[in-house]
This record gives sequence, C-alpha cells and structure tokens, in this order.
Amino acid sequence: MPGDRVGIVGVSGYLGGELARLLTDHPGLNLVGAVSRSQAGKTLQECLPFVSDGANVPILPSTETLDCDLAFLSLPPGEAMTQVPRLRERGIRAIDLSADYRLKDPAAYERTYGRPHTDPEGLSKAVYGLTEMERGEIGAAGVVASPGCYPTAFLLGCRPIVDAGVVPREFVIDAKSGSSGAGASPTAETHHPAVAGDVHPYGGGNHRHLPEIAQELGVKEGDQVPEIVFVPHLVPLVRGILTTSYLVGLSEDQEGRAIEAVRSTYAAEPFVRLGPVPRIPWAIGSNRCFLGTESHGGTLVVFSAIDNLLKGGAGQAVQNANLMLGRPETEGLPLGGLGL
Amino acid sequence: MPGDRVGIVGVSGYLGGELARLLTDHPGLNLVGAVSRSQAGKTLQECLPFVSDGANVPILPSTETLDCDLAFLSLPPGEAMTQVPRLRERGIRAIDLSADYRLKDPAAYERTYGRPHTDPEGLSKAVYGLTEMERGEIGAAGVVASPGCYPTAFLLGCRPIVDAGVVPREFVIDAKSGSSGAGASPTAETHHPAVAGDVHPYGGGNHRHLPEIAQELGVKEGDQVPEIVFVPHLVPLVRGILTTSYLVGLSEDQEGRAIEAVRSTYAAEPFVRLGPVPRIPWAIGSNRCFLGTESHGGTLVVFSAIDNLLKGGAGQAVQNANLMLGRPETEGLPLGGLGL
Amino acid sequence: MPGDRVGIVGVSGYLGGELARLLTDHPGLNLVGAVSRSQAGKTLQECLPFVSDGANVPILPSTETLDCDLAFLSLPPGEAMTQVPRLRERGIRAIDLSADYRLKDPAAYERTYGRPHTDPEGLSKAVYGLTEMERGEIGAAGVVASPGCYPTAFLLGCRPIVDAGVVPREFVIDAKSGSSGAGASPTAETHHPAVAGDVHPYGGGNHRHLPEIAQELGVKEGDQVPEIVFVPHLVPLVRGILTTSYLVGLSEDQEGRAIEAVRSTYAAEPFVRLGPVPRIPWAIGSNRCFLGTESHGGTLVVFSAIDNLLKGGAGQAVQNANLMLGRPETEGLPLGGLGL
Amino acid sequence: MPGDRVGIVGVSGYLGGELARLLTDHPGLNLVGAVSRSQAGKTLQECLPFVSDGANVPILPSTETLDCDLAFLSLPPGEAMTQVPRLRERGIRAIDLSADYRLKDPAAYERTYGRPHTDPEGLSKAVYGLTEMERGEIGAAGVVASPGCYPTAFLLGCRPIVDAGVVPREFVIDAKSGSSGAGASPTAETHHPAVAGDVHPYGGGNHRHLPEIAQELGVKEGDQVPEIVFVPHLVPLVRGILTTSYLVGLSEDQEGRAIEAVRSTYAAEPFVRLGPVPRIPWAIGSNRCFLGTESHGGTLVVFSAIDNLLKGGAGQAVQNANLMLGRPETEGLPLGGLGL
Repeated sequence: MPGDRVGIVGVSGYLGGELARLLTDHPGLNLVGAVSRSQAGKTLQECLPFVSDGANVPILPSTETLDCDLAFLSLPPGEAMTQVPRLRERGIRAIDLSADYRLKDPAAYERTYGRPHTDPEGLSKAVYGLTEMERGEIGAAGVVASPGCYPTAFLLGCRPIVDAGVVPREFVIDAKSGSSGAGASPTAETHHPAVAGDVHPYGGGNHRHLPEIAQELGVKEGDQVPEIVFVPHLVPLVRGILTTSYLVGLSEDQEGRAIEAVRSTYAAEPFVRLGPVPRIPWAIGSNRCFLGTESHGGTLVVFSAIDNLLKGGAGQAVQNANLMLGRPETEGLPLGGLGL
Repeated sequence: MPGDRVGIVGVSGYLGGELARLLTDHPGLNLVGAVSRSQAGKTLQECLPFVSDGANVPILPSTETLDCDLAFLSLPPGEAMTQVPRLRERGIRAIDLSADYRLKDPAAYERTYGRPHTDPEGLSKAVYGLTEMERGEIGAAGVVASPGCYPTAFLLGCRPIVDAGVVPREFVIDAKSGSSGAGASPTAETHHPAVAGDVHPYGGGNHRHLPEIAQELGVKEGDQVPEIVFVPHLVPLVRGILTTSYLVGLSEDQEGRAIEAVRSTYAAEPFVRLGPVPRIPWAIGSNRCFLGTESHGGTLVVFSAIDNLLKGGAGQAVQNANLMLGRPETEGLPLGGLGL
Repeated sequence: MPGDRVGIVGVSGYLGGELARLLTDHPGLNLVGAVSRSQAGKTLQECLPFVSDGANVPILPSTETLDCDLAFLSLPPGEAMTQVPRLRERGIRAIDLSADYRLKDPAAYERTYGRPHTDPEGLSKAVYGLTEMERGEIGAAGVVASPGCYPTAFLLGCRPIVDAGVVPREFVIDAKSGSSGAGASPTAETHHPAVAGDVHPYGGGNHRHLPEIAQELGVKEGDQVPEIVFVPHLVPLVRGILTTSYLVGLSEDQEGRAIEAVRSTYAAEPFVRLGPVPRIPWAIGSNRCFLGTESHGGTLVVFSAIDNLLKGGAGQAVQNANLMLGRPETEGLPLGGLGL
Repeated sequence: MPGDRVGIVGVSGYLGGELARLLTDHPGLNLVGAVSRSQAGKTLQECLPFVSDGANVPILPSTETLDCDLAFLSLPPGEAMTQVPRLRERGIRAIDLSADYRLKDPAAYERTYGRPHTDPEGLSKAVYGLTEMERGEIGAAGVVASPGCYPTAFLLGCRPIVDAGVVPREFVIDAKSGSSGAGASPTAETHHPAVAGDVHPYGGGNHRHLPEIAQELGVKEGDQVPEIVFVPHLVPLVRGILTTSYLVGLSEDQEGRAIEAVRSTYAAEPFVRLGPVPRIPWAIGSNRCFLGTESHGGTLVVFSAIDNLLKGGAGQAVQNANLMLGRPETEGLPLGGLGL
C-alpha cells in the first residue's frame, strides 16, 4: 500500500478509536500499527468492530515496536511528553492529542496540570494545531499539539474577531459537551444514570482549558480586557459540542466588524461554515465547524458547533497530518455530517 | 369530600396534566372538574392514565359548565384574557398559567405578544405569582399570573441579589430547557429526531420572556444597567430547566453581599435550597428550586435548577392556590425530587 | 415522631436512595437511621440532596449502631445473608432488596450466584415479596425477599395466567430496562457513551433472574412446558422497565381465559392497572404496574411497565413493610406517575 | 462531471436527505437534481446544510423537470406508483424507497395499504432490493423496491436460515427502532416528550411490514409454519434498529445448521458481519448490518443491528443503484460506523 506510514499510540480510548476509523479509510496514509498495552496481539478489527477494515493492522504492545513516519498520540495526561522525545530520537514526527504540548510556557503547564513539563525542548518547538489559524507553521512541524475540543469550538468562532482588533470587555463562554469528551474510562460523573437526565456545569470555576484559550486569544496575564469566563456543561449527548460565546460590550460598529471578520476568514475554508444558528447534528460525523451569530444589543453571541471527536479531536489531527505529510488538507476527512 | 372546589380549564396540555396530577392527590383541595373541548365526556382517569385517581372527575366541554371557587387556566396564548372576565363575573378566582396576566403594562403586552390586551382591568389587579417574592399580595388576589418557567428559575436565583442593591453591569442568562416546556403540540422544532441529538439555541435574540424578566427585576426601559441578555437552549431532556446566569462586573465585596442575599432570603423557605452546583434530577418531581453559585473573578455565576412543570408551572400555581384559599403553603406539593 | 422505627442498611446505592426518598415522606413509619460506611457522619440530607427532609436522620457507620423494628437491606450480592442473622438475633425484622433470599432452594442459590448460602435457616422461612401474589404470607414474615425488577414486571403480568391454568408452550420474555437497574457503580457497560446510543441485549442466555422467574411461575426443572426464554436489553433510559412477554401457542379460548385472569386478579388492586398498551412514563415516580395485552393469532403478548426503583424495588419493599407493620398497604406510596 | 446522472424525487424527508448526503459524495454517480415542491428554487446546500457540498445541485419543483438516468423516489405512501410509470415512459429507471413496489401481489398490496395498486405492470417486474439476497436480479431491473428498515434487519439475519431448510415453529420478532424511522413529519407519537422517556410498542398486532416479511421468507398464507409474530417498539434513539428474533423450537442440530448458514452466506459480503452480540453504534453512519446469535436451549436468538437510514434505507438503495448502473457495489458507501 502506498502512502506515508502512520501509527496510533493509544488506540483504546475514544480519540484513538476515532483516529483508527479515519486512518483505515484514508486514501493517502497507511496505518501500519496501533499501540495498546491492554489490546496487544489482536488486530484492529477485533478491537474496534466498527472500523471499515483493520484485519491487517496489528495492535502492538509498545511504541518501541511501532515503525512509522508520523505517530498520533492519544494518551492519558502526562504520558505524551515522555514518549515524544523517544519518537524524536527515532526520527518520527508526532501529533499529540493530549494537553502536553498545548501551553507554550512550561510554567503555565505546571501551574495548570500540577506537574513539571519533562520535555521543555519539544514544547518550545511544538506548534498549536488549530489548523485554520496556524496553517503556515504546521507543515514543517516536528510536533503538533492538537487543540482541545472546547478551545477548538470557541477559538474558531472568536479568534478572527480578536485578530481583527475587536476586543470585547468580556467573553462569557457557556459550553455544552457530550459525554464522549470525558473519555472512555467509566466514572461516577459519566455514569449513564448521572448524565442522561441532567445538564451539569462542572470545572468549579477553574477549568484547565482556560489557559489554553487565553494563550490562543493572545491574552496575557494582567491584561485588563478581555476577561474570560468559561463554564463547561455536560449535556446528555454522546458526540457534539456547542459553545455559546457572549462578547459583552461591543458597539454596533464593532459587532459589524466582528461578523465581517468571521465571514471573510472562512469564506474559502472547507471545514468552517458561517450560517444560521447551527445544529449539532450537522457536524456529527464531519470534520466541519458550524458557526452562527446573533446580536443582542451590545452583546454579540457567537455559536459554534463541532463533533468533539472529529474537528475537536481526531479529525483536526488528521487535517494536520495531511499538512505535515504534504497531502491535500481535506484528504480522508468527512465533509458531510449525519444531519440527524 | 371536603375542601375548596377547584377546576382546571385546559387539561389536555402538559401543564394541565401536571395540575391534574397534583390536584387529585391534594388533601385540602377538591378537584371537581376539568375542561377540555377535545376530551369532554371522558373521566380524568380515562384521559390521563397516570393520575393517581380521577374516575370521579368529569371532563367538561366548556368553562361555563365548571362550578368552583378557583379555576386554574392552562390555555393557548390569548385565551385566558377572554375567560378570566367571565369567571370574575361568576365570582370565581383564577390562576392563569399562560402569559396573559404577567406583564403589568398593557402596552408591553401588546408589544410582546402582538395583540391588544382585552382585559386591562383584570390585568391591573393581577398579582405576579412568584410565590417567594410576592407572598403578601397573593393571598387576597382575584387573579394570579403564574410565572413562566424560565423567569421562575432565573428570578429565584437573582432577584434577591438585585433587591439587596447589588446590580451587575450585565446579566447574561444562558438557559437550558427540556422539551416539555414547549408544550404538547407536535412541531418540527420538538420532533424527537430534531431534539434528541442537539442543544439548540432559539428565540433569535428576542425571547418573549425577556420583558417579564426585566419587569420583575425592576429594570425599566432606558435603564443603563443591568443589561440583560437571555439565550434559551432546547436540550435533550423532557423535564427540567437549568439557568446559568452570569452577573458580570461585580466587585469581591458585591459578590459576597450577593451570595449572602440569596442565602438569607431562602434560609427558611421550604421550596428553595442554596447549596452546591445543582443537578436537575434533584428537582424532578419536586416543587423545589435548587440554587448554587460559583465565583469567576469579577463574574458571579448563579445556577438554578427546577422542574419546569412543577416550580416552573403547575407546582407554583398550586402553591399560590394554597395561599389564596388559606391552606398551608406546602400542602399537596412534593418536596422530595426523584434524584435520578 | 410516632410510628414504627425503620432503618436502611446500604443507603448509597440507587435502591437505598429511593428507600430514603419514600421513608422520609412516609406518614406512618419513622426512619431513624441509615447505614453507609462511606457516608457515615453525615446527615441523610447532606448525603442525598433530593430527599424532602433528612436533616435529623443520621448516616451510621454499621448495622450494629442501627436500632429499629424493621431494616431494609440494600447491599451488594451476598452481604445480606451475613447481616440478616445478626438482625434476627436482635429481634429486627428485615426486608432484603438483594437476591440473597429470593430462591427458596439453597442449591439453586449456589448454582445461580456461585457461592453457598450462609443462612439456610433464614432462607427457609423467607417470604418472596411480590406483594399482590404473596400478601397472606408477608404480614407475619421475619424476612421478606423483595423481588427483582425484571421478575416483578414479568410475573405481575403473567403469573395470574399460569395460576388460572393457562400454560403456553413457551414464554419469550423480551425485557427492556433503564440503566438505573444496573446500580450506582460506574462500569464500562453503564458508561454514558456506551448506553446512550444503543439498545443492548446482555446476559448471554443465562440471566440470573431466570431461576427466580421459573420458581415463581411454579415451573420445576425437567418440566416440558413452559419453556422460558428471557433476554434483557439495556435501553437508553434511566428509570423504567418494559417487559414484552410472548405467550406462544395459545388457543383463542386460552387467550380469552388468560386476559380474563389478569383482569379479575387486579380488578381491586391499587397498584396494578390493566389497560391499553402501557407507556413507561405513566409508571415513573409511581408504585404502579401498568399492564396491556395484544393478540397475535396464537401468541398472546403481555406488556408490563413499571418504575424499576419503585414497584420493581424500593416501592414494593415499602408496600411489604406496610403489611409487616400493620399499616395500610398503600400508605406513603405514590400512586400517580409523572406521565412524562 | 463524469458518471451516470441520478436524481432524488422527494428530498425533504429523512431518507431523501440521506440519499443527498450519500450521492453528493459518490465518486461514480452524478447527482443532477432533487425534487421537492416545498423547497424548489433553493440549492441542495441551502436546503440541507449538512451535506458535504450541494451548491450546484438545484431543487426542482417537479419530477418532469428532472432529467437523469436513474431516479431515487422517497415519497409518501402511494405516490411512487403514480410517478414510476411516467419515469418509465421517459426511459428513466427507478429505485423506490416507499412500500409501493415491495409486495408482489397487487391484492396483498391493497389489503395491506388500503388502496388499489395503480401500476400492476410495473409491480410485476419490480425487483425486491434486499441486495445480498437478490443480487442477480437487481442489475437489469427497471424498478427496484428498496426494502423497509425492519424487514432488512430481520431478513438479513434469518432468511439464510430458512433458505438452508431450517424452519422454526415460530419467529418472534421483537424490533426496536429509533425515531427517524417514523419520518420527518411531526406527530403526537414522535413528539420528543412522548418518545424520550419511553420504549413504546406500536402497530397493534397488525404491522404493515408483516406481509413483506412473510413474502420474502417464502411463507404463504395458510402455511402452518413458521408463525410470525412481529412487535415493533419505538425506542429513544434517532438512528438505528435492533431486531431480536427468537426462532422457537429448533433442535440442537438445527441451531448449528442455522448458525452455519448465516456464517457461510456472509463470509465474503462487505456489508454484513456475523460476530458477537452487536451494538447499534457500530452500524451508525455505515451501510453495514451486524449480526449475532445466542442459543437459549431450543430457541435460537438472532440479533441484527443496522442504521435504518443507511442499510435500512438510502444506503441499500445506493448499493442497488451501483449494481443497476454497473458500478462497484460498495462504491460511495460508508463501511465504517461511528462506533459511538
């Protein structure tokens, strides 16, 4: 089979499974193996019955046994930064789907995640993989930090506005996520009876995605504006995120410029659509982000809907891989969504 | 059977059904009949198989044939204001669960609902039935306007704050409601396939509950603060509302006073609890409102969870009826929630 | 407070919480304490925010510290049979909500649950608490084994038929249960993303409820008819069970006698209703079972819907407690269901 | 653009939308237009924001204005049989997704659907499009009747068994379908509050899919065996069907032959997989059917899971179109499922 050889490190979680789904169908990349300690020895097909095909893809016991040009890492927090240096030594580029390489400042990493960063060298060169915003840097990167699902949804909607010089007094980000965003490990918080009848705010005012959001908006500690308030809610869906972002304190003129900035930024982008108030199912199964805006007299509301496992995770990672490996950016990525 | 005689006008909708459920079990009120043109001739039991008992409660064809001391009206928009005057002539007091008697200013009613108010006399004397806030007025009222589910959830959390003199620069109200709030009539927007996989913002920036909220907060047109932004979302639940209210621009001292105002207001209230971040299922099947607060550095977030059909509808209506008829306020009302 | 003193052993699970909800509102029973090792020291209110009141009910560290007339046991498999003998010594009667006392034959217990029964004496005197079927025995019982949720739903519908001498060639029981039936401990099978999009058959052809069902139908090993096939499915609901039971191979005359048997058995029962094809939400929040039948030319289909935590668990347990303590059978039990 | 020109007649329903989704991404077919009276004048993109692309596909006002080689018809009951003859005159082949051409006997059609068949000539030549079973006939057909979602799920699992000469005494088919199977028109039965908390049996013992099932199993009126009992249930999912089929009265030897028949039939089929008890999400977004079996001592249970809009609808229709137009059978059809 032709194409660059890619591998997945950590295939038993939801993002790993989604990567497997995309990569087994990718016409230009060749999935040569996937690493999972618990599933080693099986084929991908046996492990994930829903992938189109995977009878020839072995599940390997360790990263050392994976030989490829580019590895996708979908590992528990803190594990990627121990694996990436070893991959680097072997000349293997990496796309990390965890938070390990997202914050550029090692001190911010330690403050946010409660442990020192053990690969500051890698961190300093890693590129933040919000593709539409960092396209120029991604192609040549050795390590791409694929963004979190919440930051992706919010930033796609709001960064063009700030980049255009329209800075609201405050961003109030009220985010709603399906349960797959919390991962495949059962917990009391993600037990079906706890989730199915509730819309549950969580994070306690201190969500670990906030520093990532601030960094990518270009907000520095001590800046007076914008203030950013972020409250994530777990909603009774499996896939999908909607962020409702309130840009408080804009003049009518600023609102117009904000909407125009979003429109022009994405006019030619295949994976971002600006239109009416979005519906999450439009984005399910697709790598697209759907944006909409609504004016509330001085507050501009920006809605953003994505499939958290695709544009908010594995899909964007493959989009970055396409750039890194010189493939067409949309190759192997679903544009159409399920609709319902 | 002892007790004041009450009736339900409009029993085929969800609020009518919920009233029937509560009133057939009420130890101090005597449900003598229910009006429904489409169901007339049946018994309540035949019409609503889930009520505890209703074999002796007739479904009547018209309000004229209902003889009682107090009538609950659960009718399509605009119908209550034609029925209430006729009930008044017959000496029957009314609790209206529609929006017809909520806005005190007939001009605001016309602006909001697109038709003139045909009972301005009744309107001028009607009492807004947010029980914990208007308790003094309700007992003697001839007409009580039971509040909408969104305003109930928001106001229980935030009016004590404004009443205590703490006024934020802006209220951003991000509200999430189950589908029963949209009523029993099937529409494209409430079709199961449209709701089950989505979290859908609606209202287009102009929700008809906004004037009701502003009125009850004491905000007058032209006031500079607070601005109020209200975005309701339809979530894939049947029962339940969560409002996430962001009070933007408070000092630390104001935050403290705000929380203290909420705490002291409800310290002795049976139907409102201030505690940790609430879960909707705690409120399901209960007439209670659960409140929680979270500080986000200059923005205070107030969470409020209710069962939209109980504290946000039929339960609060019965609470008001208890006051109007001199019964204990909690009589016949469930305190405990299902929990899950 | 008047009334018999009751306690709950094991209050942190879903059935324990449901018992707490019912018993704090029970007008004739006095909940004096609840045992939970992990929650000891709190009040019931702190532990379960949704109960109507529980500020005065202590959570105790062990059964030894619980002093009462009757204890409800809601414990992991195998624990009740170690606790019941000690309660018996202290003169405390017991209602066990686990499977420990349901199978009358210790050998069948061992075969089904994979461990020997350690209280055969207690087992021999225990009464199976399907209230409508065993009412005569329950009042004087020292130990009542509250039935499982699946057997309750199936047996209420079908035992009157077999008792009337109508025995089909085969019972095919296709059961659908919400996730709360699997308990409060998070597992891969009850993780929200695993449950929310699926209808999942489980049990592998060997469900441990089958011997309980056969015993209560009066089917002995080696009997030629009826064969019983039971396939439970986990459905994306939290509360509620529907059993669809196919009685294969009945003559038209037998079908008539079967339906008549169900009708006459429940004509005067407060907690069982025979009517049209039932809806699960009619039963949610209620201790009622709703039955319906449908004729398919030689196969009679019996539908049965209950709230698995009420009539299928805690509600039926309280119904039994009422009988054991000489209270009215319906006291403290909800008749009306939520409806939606 | 190369490829045969295809069109969709009736694009505003769920199957029409699913066809649009598939055909806009199909590498070998050219979607030239879609007919919808209510949406005429828009582009497909405006009408269905979730399709990958459709800016160049016009929505046409009537079938007369659609020029193509093959038309997919997704119309309300009874409309296809008026359109197909006119298409035939124009030399346009048709795949009908309604029930109009499924029953080979016009009398059975009239009995089942309550109106005479107006195109008996077309009916006599139409081929039933259960692809894996009728592959030989489909390629040359002028009209293919795409099967219903329930019959597809059941027949894929059980027809190989009957074809192998293993005939059970009785088929008990307990089917569970998501709400998209009921179509896009809002009704009381598919209102979100009615569906979301229930598992609802419907059809009243007389489901219109039964004659289709019997015909395709080769069961004739008056046959003693097998009896077929079919009870569909609406479950709180949007997409997906699971059929649990009980084959009553098989010997051990027959069970073995039955399983072997299923295994060998599908050994080389791309769209059918026999494996462990299936999960519906494996099939969502995929044109695959997942089968599993379970032995219950004399009764063999066959589980079958499909996406009702794909293998149970639009996907199978495209599979048939590929055969009719000489394309590779799997072209343009998703093999991989979402998994969750």
